[in-house]
Amino acid sequence: MSGNEARIEALEERLKRLEDQQEISRLVASYGPLVDAGEASRVGALWTDDGIYDVDDYYMASRADIEAMVRSDAHQGLIGKGCCHFLGPAHVTVDGDRAVAVCESVLLVQHQGRPVVARIGANRFEFVRTTHGWRTVHRTTRGLDGDAAARSLLAETTVSI
Amino acid sequence: MSGNEARIEALEERLKRLEDQQEISRLVASYGPLVDAGEASRVGALWTDDGIYDVDDYYMASRADIEAMVRSDAHQGLIGKGCCHFLGPAHVTVDGDRAVAVCESVLLVQHQGRPVVARIGANRFEFVRTTHGWRTVHRTTRGLDGDAAARSLLAETTVSI
Amino acid sequence: MSGNEARIEALEERLKRLEDQQEISRLVASYGPLVDAGEASRVGALWTDDGIYDVDDYYMASRADIEAMVRSDAHQGLIGKGCCHFLGPAHVTVDGDRAVAVCESVLLVQHQGRPVVARIGANRFEFVRTTHGWRTVHRTTRGLDGDAAARSLLAETTVSI
Repeated sequence: MSGNEARIEALEERLKRLEDQQEISRLVASYGPLVDAGEASRVGALWTDDGIYDVDDYYMASRADIEAMVRSDAHQGLIGKGCCHFLGPAHVTVDGDRAVAVCESVLLVQHQGRPVVARIGANRFEFVRTTHGWRTVHRTTRGLDGDAAARSLLAETTVSI
Repeated sequence: MSGNEARIEALEERLKRLEDQQEISRLVASYGPLVDAGEASRVGALWTDDGIYDVDDYYMASRADIEAMVRSDAHQGLIGKGCCHFLGPAHVTVDGDRAVAVCESVLLVQHQGRPVVARIGANRFEFVRTTHGWRTVHRTTRGLDGDAAARSLLAETTVSI
Repeated sequence: MSGNEARIEALEERLKRLEDQQEISRLVASYGPLVDAGEASRVGALWTDDGIYDVDDYYMASRADIEAMVRSDAHQGLIGKGCCHFLGPAHVTVDGDRAVAVCESVLLVQHQGRPVVARIGANRFEFVRTTHGWRTVHRTTRGLDGDAAARSLLAETTVSI
């Protein structure tokens, strides 16, 4: 391999890593806007077909389950009054065709005509690279209410699947 | 074209796309800090000369209008007490020399010595590439208070201008 | 230098700049999750050994001081009830082996079983490139309570050290 070829190959690898980071950050940044817009199928498409979204006492085990959550009376009631699923910047770690991200979140809802903080949360995502791009295989969200397991989610930045 | 030349050209295109994404994310991330610092001209410089900033019932139709808003008694009163225009991570879509970003926002203000949430919002930006870098041509901000049009802003991630 | 070599060199420089931006954004995005998880040594490792973290009336002058803050009864009390140090997307400016970032922040804590906003803040970071990657040399955090010095922190986006 010539010197130029080796340098080009190194650039390709570094660029791919940055693109992966960027695509995953962008995926996480799209969740809040899409779920608050009520875009059920686009929210679902952030997961694999059998992707898991595990929120406190609400366990969704497929893209279909997640879409059903967005279309549910409970969620439609929230967005009908106005709500904001505010996720912070994702801390992303890519490991080949797997990746993990953690971030914190704040849920704000309208209550008696005023926005109030309803929940603060810890979020951990696992992703897989598919032929259509990165998708979520497992997202866990827990309220930050002092529970040690919720807290420790935020520190689990290594791919585990 | 040699094999190396083709690979270099592909790298240049992919890198440019990442740089565009990065520059636009950075522009959006600068709005809150600059407006809360009261930096009128630097806030204005995020828009083109005839850029639009359309916030609920406040319509600004030029960079000059936007600078005047930052210098207004209303805004100076807010930052004089302390406020935080907190914008979430931008979801950016680049399409040649145009781009769009959406994000959610929370406005917090000091009220009787305590920080309170004054508003939750939906934001949609359209950008154009200029010889001085990316600039905002149109930003729309609406309160997330149950209004369907506000909500749907968050889903409009395709360049429309 | 051949045409290809010059293009490769230009790509290497542009890519390095993007990687720097990305690594620093990622460092800032990790602070909140790590401090709310109580990961004292990983929080400390975001700073150089003699890095400074200057928060209102609490001045930490080393990595050891910062770790001690995370392990303190005061901080453990906060995370034991549940809290969220929510930092916004960082606005990063790289200048060779130095860099600066600004962002706003919201501290939310559990109070009588409900999450409440305890503080809104201005944050300015200075970083240095080390052999182990970017590290914080100085972070200043001030409450956004109307103080002009706190406000102006948000506008100081040029490397000063």
